[in-house]
Amino acid sequence: MRGNHFGKMFSFMSFGESHGPAMGVVIDGLPAGLDVDLAQLQLELDKRRPGRITGTTNRNELDQAVVLSGVYAGKSLGSPIAVTIQNTNQKSSDYDQLKTEVRAGHADQTTLDKFGVRDHRGGGRASGRETVARVIAGYFASLIIPQIKVKAFTSHLGPFTYNGIPEKPHTDFGDYGFPEVAKSEEIKKYLENLKADGESIGGAVTVVIDHCPKGLGEPAFDKLKADLAKAIMSIGAVVGFSFGSGIDFLSLKGSEVSADKSHFGGIEGGITNGERIVLTVYFKPTSTVGEKAKAGRHDPCIIPRAIPVVEAMTKVVLADHLLRQRAYGDGNK
Amino acid sequence: MRGNHFGKMFSFMSFGESHGPAMGVVIDGLPAGLDVDLAQLQLELDKRRPGRITGTTNRNELDQAVVLSGVYAGKSLGSPIAVTIQNTNQKSSDYDQLKTEVRAGHADQTTLDKFGVRDHRGGGRASGRETVARVIAGYFASLIIPQIKVKAFTSHLGPFTYNGIPEKPHTDFGDYGFPEVAKSEEIKKYLENLKADGESIGGAVTVVIDHCPKGLGEPAFDKLKADLAKAIMSIGAVVGFSFGSGIDFLSLKGSEVSADKSHFGGIEGGITNGERIVLTVYFKPTSTVGEKAKAGRHDPCIIPRAIPVVEAMTKVVLADHLLRQRAYGDGNK
Amino acid sequence: MRGNHFGKMFSFMSFGESHGPAMGVVIDGLPAGLDVDLAQLQLELDKRRPGRITGTTNRNELDQAVVLSGVYAGKSLGSPIAVTIQNTNQKSSDYDQLKTEVRAGHADQTTLDKFGVRDHRGGGRASGRETVARVIAGYFASLIIPQIKVKAFTSHLGPFTYNGIPEKPHTDFGDYGFPEVAKSEEIKKYLENLKADGESIGGAVTVVIDHCPKGLGEPAFDKLKADLAKAIMSIGAVVGFSFGSGIDFLSLKGSEVSADKSHFGGIEGGITNGERIVLTVYFKPTSTVGEKAKAGRHDPCIIPRAIPVVEAMTKVVLADHLLRQRAYGDGNK
Amino acid sequence: MRGNHFGKMFSFMSFGESHGPAMGVVIDGLPAGLDVDLAQLQLELDKRRPGRITGTTNRNELDQAVVLSGVYAGKSLGSPIAVTIQNTNQKSSDYDQLKTEVRAGHADQTTLDKFGVRDHRGGGRASGRETVARVIAGYFASLIIPQIKVKAFTSHLGPFTYNGIPEKPHTDFGDYGFPEVAKSEEIKKYLENLKADGESIGGAVTVVIDHCPKGLGEPAFDKLKADLAKAIMSIGAVVGFSFGSGIDFLSLKGSEVSADKSHFGGIEGGITNGERIVLTVYFKPTSTVGEKAKAGRHDPCIIPRAIPVVEAMTKVVLADHLLRQRAYGDGNK
Repeated sequence: MRGNHFGKMFSFMSFGESHGPAMGVVIDGLPAGLDVDLAQLQLELDKRRPGRITGTTNRNELDQAVVLSGVYAGKSLGSPIAVTIQNTNQKSSDYDQLKTEVRAGHADQTTLDKFGVRDHRGGGRASGRETVARVIAGYFASLIIPQIKVKAFTSHLGPFTYNGIPEKPHTDFGDYGFPEVAKSEEIKKYLENLKADGESIGGAVTVVIDHCPKGLGEPAFDKLKADLAKAIMSIGAVVGFSFGSGIDFLSLKGSEVSADKSHFGGIEGGITNGERIVLTVYFKPTSTVGEKAKAGRHDPCIIPRAIPVVEAMTKVVLADHLLRQRAYGDGNK
Repeated sequence: MRGNHFGKMFSFMSFGESHGPAMGVVIDGLPAGLDVDLAQLQLELDKRRPGRITGTTNRNELDQAVVLSGVYAGKSLGSPIAVTIQNTNQKSSDYDQLKTEVRAGHADQTTLDKFGVRDHRGGGRASGRETVARVIAGYFASLIIPQIKVKAFTSHLGPFTYNGIPEKPHTDFGDYGFPEVAKSEEIKKYLENLKADGESIGGAVTVVIDHCPKGLGEPAFDKLKADLAKAIMSIGAVVGFSFGSGIDFLSLKGSEVSADKSHFGGIEGGITNGERIVLTVYFKPTSTVGEKAKAGRHDPCIIPRAIPVVEAMTKVVLADHLLRQRAYGDGNK
Repeated sequence: MRGNHFGKMFSFMSFGESHGPAMGVVIDGLPAGLDVDLAQLQLELDKRRPGRITGTTNRNELDQAVVLSGVYAGKSLGSPIAVTIQNTNQKSSDYDQLKTEVRAGHADQTTLDKFGVRDHRGGGRASGRETVARVIAGYFASLIIPQIKVKAFTSHLGPFTYNGIPEKPHTDFGDYGFPEVAKSEEIKKYLENLKADGESIGGAVTVVIDHCPKGLGEPAFDKLKADLAKAIMSIGAVVGFSFGSGIDFLSLKGSEVSADKSHFGGIEGGITNGERIVLTVYFKPTSTVGEKAKAGRHDPCIIPRAIPVVEAMTKVVLADHLLRQRAYGDGNK
Repeated sequence: MRGNHFGKMFSFMSFGESHGPAMGVVIDGLPAGLDVDLAQLQLELDKRRPGRITGTTNRNELDQAVVLSGVYAGKSLGSPIAVTIQNTNQKSSDYDQLKTEVRAGHADQTTLDKFGVRDHRGGGRASGRETVARVIAGYFASLIIPQIKVKAFTSHLGPFTYNGIPEKPHTDFGDYGFPEVAKSEEIKKYLENLKADGESIGGAVTVVIDHCPKGLGEPAFDKLKADLAKAIMSIGAVVGFSFGSGIDFLSLKGSEVSADKSHFGGIEGGITNGERIVLTVYFKPTSTVGEKAKAGRHDPCIIPRAIPVVEAMTKVVLADHLLRQRAYGDGNK
């Protein structure tokens, strides 16, 4: 109710302030008897870790996942899976000046207005660090939907734009997730310059979902598009969401749309039709700019690190809806 | 869980297939003792009624709301408010051919895939008629947030585009909700021609929310932007959602954003900051095209009728979050 | 959240004040494609109807269920099932004196304290009439669990006590649900005398559940015993709940209990073990006594009419847990 | 949905198997700005710790609560409060024989049936150790309801029975929670003998709630009595629940009940009436008997250690309903 709980059949609660002792997540709803591979979980976490990619923040946090419950002898037990990650890099002195300062575009002022109290040492719950919980949940969600392939890639980052869907979307596009991998060096330079200027940039991410079964999503309020929107719009820097032809629908006529079902992006009437699902996610520029952005450990563009988070939230929604559909089993009668 | 329930503190369940006996809604969470004005409720319903606006469907349904519970002597009782609307215009013969036909872009095939059974006489739960429940819920939500002004207007409809926010957004913009009211006749002609051609079009709606208190929305998953996205993306023809500068963030640098707080559209860190909230909602063209669209009772553009639905879902989310915030009352300590 | 919603996977929202236009329920979570027999639904409703049984209230309400949605051509559609029942017997003049009066043991004063407003014409939401919604939900729940047999019988009613479980519990025990059917006439006389004296009495009901699959119920908070307790304790006049040997455990030693598994009443660690489930439900005397009870249309003992309500709430919980377990499907790996 | 989440406005998720790395809880819904006293939390935990009381298990676990989030500088932040407790006393060798053994009355077999997999080293989620999460949640709940006094005492334990309510219920009744404190030594001897015999016993606990405001609880399904029943029946060894005169209602006539409002135990129509609330909770004998009970670290009677758990679950429900009522604020108009 306070907003730290997500999902229905596959659900989780996240916790942790960026400068408290630890971040973490408790997952409720993973079926028992599934193989859990902690090395794979760690790989997923590493993708969003700051300091990995040049051009992104140079904080070198060791996001080591510790599983406290729900897994025994490599199998899920059907009980809640609690995972914590210590906040090892709490250089609180970096943040001392923030005691009286509130940062535009951050949640500093709104947190204070809402709660009347705030851990001034950092973003608290509003910190991007909160997303480790999502990535962990996404890993466990993926165990429920092994047949579904979810891939997010950078489709817009400053001057770099990729239109359409790559022929082989489910491959590694390198540090910046941009399908023209050859441009990675160019993007790196662009981001380094941006940082040197104390500047930041937004962009867009495209999500491709393949092999999703038909029938996921519910009529009325829990349409798959609505639940995906909620999941993805709940990520800090996300400012827009669309599916299928999205904003391009503005310039399409009904006859054009009817002629090519792919405009619907795999979702009709809120329910999957068995075809490829395509989502677009829009990000604002990161809020820290100016001298602080040059000196500090801040990302000039959040997209490279946001990609695994977007993928994770997508998986979480698909797993939830798969369990829901399995419960009712209507189609099987 | 099946997806027909929406909201937490202010919640409602909707029901009804387009060609069954009745549509309806049960609202749970309206505080007791509020003045209920059924004439006002009817006015809201009339706005989305088919057949009202030239250029939209000519079905002349009489959407007469009947309140079955929860209101006594003009006051809310604090108990569930059930409202039904008869489906008086069930010309099932119109739909007989649909027994074996599935319509692209509608939920016909996906409904069948999902449930294995379908009321072939119409869209069933996926019909636009389901939105009467949302409009009713929106009216009752508005009783909780009398100080907040919510207004949606047409910002993009075929060749008609309105940039920015009108100086006086909370006024009546006529049948098409387009702020340049003088263009209404032109829009009417455009839609009539579209219909004559058996064609359809999508567009965009902008929502302006004024006088919203600070502190609504929760960190993590129930950010206000996420809950608004879910609410609005759950409307049938909606394909995209953004807030603040939305997709324009793609071409903005961090320094530009920081210099003008209005880019954030009233929401920082997922929580309202007390300033004007601005949302953009994208619609696909209606799916019925060709001969059927010419002859039948179908809208060439859903936007004029969708506007009250978008406003209703917005109010529902704001009322829900206001009650949530009131429960915790953190700021008041 | 306001308390009128029950269940998770099989869920429903009830509505209606006793003296408003109608009572009703909306059920969300019935799988599609199940055969719906409205005559059977009506039979279930008739069991709890006042005026049927001598010795209970002589109000002759015609509780005619009207299905507004979710069923087409005798099959469930997977969409919400809305059912209403008109309040045809609103003799409000009977209740005029209640405008300023509050009745002990009723919710009159607490409703007023809580909501600050009340429909003085009757019990409103607190009326026993609210239970029609439960009986309707129970019928639809039974479609999900056709193999499970649920039967409640009168085990204590004034001087009449039945110990143990009848050999054939799933048979009709007549108007008073007492397994020694031969005593029905005696019970009838007892209740008539009670009513003539303006007196009332409580009692106990025993519920027998046979053929329940293993594995229903969840560890921790949603143990089957806990969810059954919540469901049944939410019925108006119920004041106590136990399962298995219940209060007899007070005089049993661990060695005796271990020697006979039937003491556990089919539930171990909160989860069904595949054996017979036995519940006991305790009722207080109905609250209306004295002259009013003699003259009015009041039950001297609620148990005969409560039996179908207890059975309904039991079925609802079992159906909910069956769907939940089916979703995770752990045991099937 | 999997059952490890409890509550609505004040909610929490618990996790941990008895022989995994740690137990814990994440609480969502504590308002911000409340004073948190970790020493007081530890005191509450110590009450349910095994090994404290002679006559109960001699395991000497150090249940040291570690707060990972949600508290800063002695104040609640309004964010989730995560608390873990290490399982320091994992003598798994004690449990090796259990690999192939299932214990009657424990959840061993039902867990295996349900999940198809089990951590054989102990009770897993079904272990009494799970209740540390409840006690922690209860402590934080108490911060929301400082004016309400909740006290549970032993009213039945083998041959020891206490009828009625002590004059000063909110005092310390010693190790066995029995209001005739002078009998503590006698109870101790009784339990020591029981253990020496490899025997166990059940009993009853009475809960007294004073200074509870009027108006808590909701009509229909979330009646306070129903939510209390669910909360308390979800505790492992609890087999029955009643409120007010409970099972004594069986021998009371309506006229007697009406003459003395205290029979209703502070709850009318499911809503608090501002008077003392009285609950009774029934426990079965602990399941481990025979040689194992003599030698092992098992309680001959769970009641002394269950008392703080019963109190905690009661507080959790009251806090939840207080926040719910505050949200709607009906009475205040």
